[in-house]
Amino acid sequence: MTSEVRIKNTGLRGVTVADSGVSFIDGEKGILIYRGYRIEDLAERSNYLETVYLLLFGTLPNPEQLSAFSDRLRAKRALPAFILDSMRLYPKTALPMDVLQATVPLLGMADKDPRADAREDVLERSITLIAQLPTVVAAWHRIRSGEEVIPPDDSLEHAANFLWMLQGEKPDEQTAKDLDVCLVLHADHTFNASTFAAREVVSTRASIYAGVTAALGALSGGLHGGANTRVMEMLLQLADEKDIKGWVEERIDQGKVIMGMGHAVYKTGDPRAAYLRKMGQRLDKTTDSRWAALASEVEQAALNRFAAEGKTTIQVNVDFCSAPVYYMMGIPIDLMTTIFAISRIAGWCAHIIEEKFADVQGKPALYRPEAQYVGEYCGLMGCTYTPMTGRKEG
Amino acid sequence: MTSEVRIKNTGLRGVTVADSGVSFIDGEKGILIYRGYRIEDLAERSNYLETVYLLLFGTLPNPEQLSAFSDRLRAKRALPAFILDSMRLYPKTALPMDVLQATVPLLGMADKDPRADAREDVLERSITLIAQLPTVVAAWHRIRSGEEVIPPDDSLEHAANFLWMLQGEKPDEQTAKDLDVCLVLHADHTFNASTFAAREVVSTRASIYAGVTAALGALSGGLHGGANTRVMEMLLQLADEKDIKGWVEERIDQGKVIMGMGHAVYKTGDPRAAYLRKMGQRLDKTTDSRWAALASEVEQAALNRFAAEGKTTIQVNVDFCSAPVYYMMGIPIDLMTTIFAISRIAGWCAHIIEEKFADVQGKPALYRPEAQYVGEYCGLMGCTYTPMTGRKEG
Repeated sequence: MTSEVRIKNTGLRGVTVADSGVSFIDGEKGILIYRGYRIEDLAERSNYLETVYLLLFGTLPNPEQLSAFSDRLRAKRALPAFILDSMRLYPKTALPMDVLQATVPLLGMADKDPRADAREDVLERSITLIAQLPTVVAAWHRIRSGEEVIPPDDSLEHAANFLWMLQGEKPDEQTAKDLDVCLVLHADHTFNASTFAAREVVSTRASIYAGVTAALGALSGGLHGGANTRVMEMLLQLADEKDIKGWVEERIDQGKVIMGMGHAVYKTGDPRAAYLRKMGQRLDKTTDSRWAALASEVEQAALNRFAAEGKTTIQVNVDFCSAPVYYMMGIPIDLMTTIFAISRIAGWCAHIIEEKFADVQGKPALYRPEAQYVGEYCGLMGCTYTPMTGRKEG
Repeated sequence: MTSEVRIKNTGLRGVTVADSGVSFIDGEKGILIYRGYRIEDLAERSNYLETVYLLLFGTLPNPEQLSAFSDRLRAKRALPAFILDSMRLYPKTALPMDVLQATVPLLGMADKDPRADAREDVLERSITLIAQLPTVVAAWHRIRSGEEVIPPDDSLEHAANFLWMLQGEKPDEQTAKDLDVCLVLHADHTFNASTFAAREVVSTRASIYAGVTAALGALSGGLHGGANTRVMEMLLQLADEKDIKGWVEERIDQGKVIMGMGHAVYKTGDPRAAYLRKMGQRLDKTTDSRWAALASEVEQAALNRFAAEGKTTIQVNVDFCSAPVYYMMGIPIDLMTTIFAISRIAGWCAHIIEEKFADVQGKPALYRPEAQYVGEYCGLMGCTYTPMTGRKEG
């Protein structure tokens, strides 16, 4: 079938598929903006709660609005009992991202009126999902570790409450603040693969639960959110390596990638990585370790090698710099991608609301591209079908 | 950010995004081909088992291959006990598509080696998913109805076994054959929204479980697989309507759609619909009902009206014709979309294997399009961030 536009096998790279008011990236200049605000301002002067409000409602809240929103989120943190009971039946080896993906449809089942799909319904569900995803992650980690599930503590802010439910200790103020900044930095990123999956799924008029479940699947991939776990595995493997430069060179010689380097959009540097690098350097000192320093050594060796080859656009990405930070906060390695998820859920919800309700002229019914058929072809009548009895024995 | 191609807000309609050897559609001529074979040949002379083999392996099986494949599928039908136990905890009102979406990640948890991702691993998981999805649907229907779960019967073929597990009675040969043909007709359909979602998710190197879970979400949408349920709701509402023509005219006057009419690709007729229409007419006689006749009345009234308006490309689609067929087979209305799913799982798996392993030159890392930012914008420095204390009280 002839189609009008052919952009085959490019992963839609550089292809503008929609209008969006949620976030903006200038990949050349290394700029990320949420709803008009620079990520640097939000990381330094704002917090995750405000950022979620901004993403969902389009403006920064005033004190009354923020207070009401905070109460609304806190009230929704606890999980329905049947969900915790189900989780207790799962194999203890279950991957945390699989548990999250399995749980979001269960949150849908707990919805009193799953067919209602007005803007207010979807907004309410967004707040539920943002409130409950951290509870799911923490509960699963407790259950698989054979420990009691710790219920949410209403006196704690979003990030602090998560660390409390996960670790069973109230975090110090700095650690809670650091995690909160991490959540701000990961909250949205235009049409990344998981957000695109969420938008694609709800473009069929499927529910926000279905969209978020799809996004979680995409995020689990090693080329997307799964990268931070892989970065930390690499750093752990290099903990006793004397010759980092040699290791990096050898790996590149073998045609292998350095986990956490390169990005589809940023070509001069990821503004989130710059933030996390500094945080990591501080944590190196306070925890008396050198994970961020080790990461920098790997980064420098790789950048030197790439520069020698004339490749100047391959920089470290957010996952490269978040991995040592999470590790030093005591986040288990295989939970790192779920930290990405409990932040990005805000962006997914904002995008799903936009996909479902934006008043875009000529808005399509659903994403439905085409493929060029390159398979077996014997004309429009098809190949001759030979019944079983006429086929050669194997 | 400037991008090279702008195809905004068109849902990628008419845009060729990849090469694929799985299936081929000529929307003008109303032709659908799986791996070289016309859908008509497969529906009349083949069966679902053979079709699955064809989709997964690219060729029709010889008798030995088919027999081995059949044994392999049958051996995998039963669900792990923890999955059935979890399902027993779900609210009885849970939507069947939500149950399916929740269960596929659980199948992932049951995987002994979830990180292994070679072609043989993914093929093995494909066979597991194709074998187990019908078991999930039937088990959930039994559980929510307060009835005993019926284990798979190895002596029965795929479609017959599903009806047995669902209804607790061995189906007659004709009904089993009819359902089998329905499964053949729905097994693949190029880059439809659910298949695209599956491919998009695994393009991040996520697992086949993550990809299929996303596809189930997309399929649940009212503009995709969810349409068959909505068609049947319309027909039930019209059961006692004397003036079908008047109802159709009024609905179109009000600017509403007729469920199950129109298709993103077919413009002269859906070859699957033609098949199902005939099957429906036969079932009208054998079940002494007139659901297919009623559907035809709606179809005719709508076609006449569209023709009067010069719209000749809006035809009934597969969901319009499958709904009465499923209803007369005794499939509960809210399970109809799951029947689509237990067929399309074959196509999803074939596409996921292609996405993961096709040797396409310049194959992209992952689907990652762009959006044009139309939101708040105050320059690359961002809008001025006003701290909370400086903001106006609500």
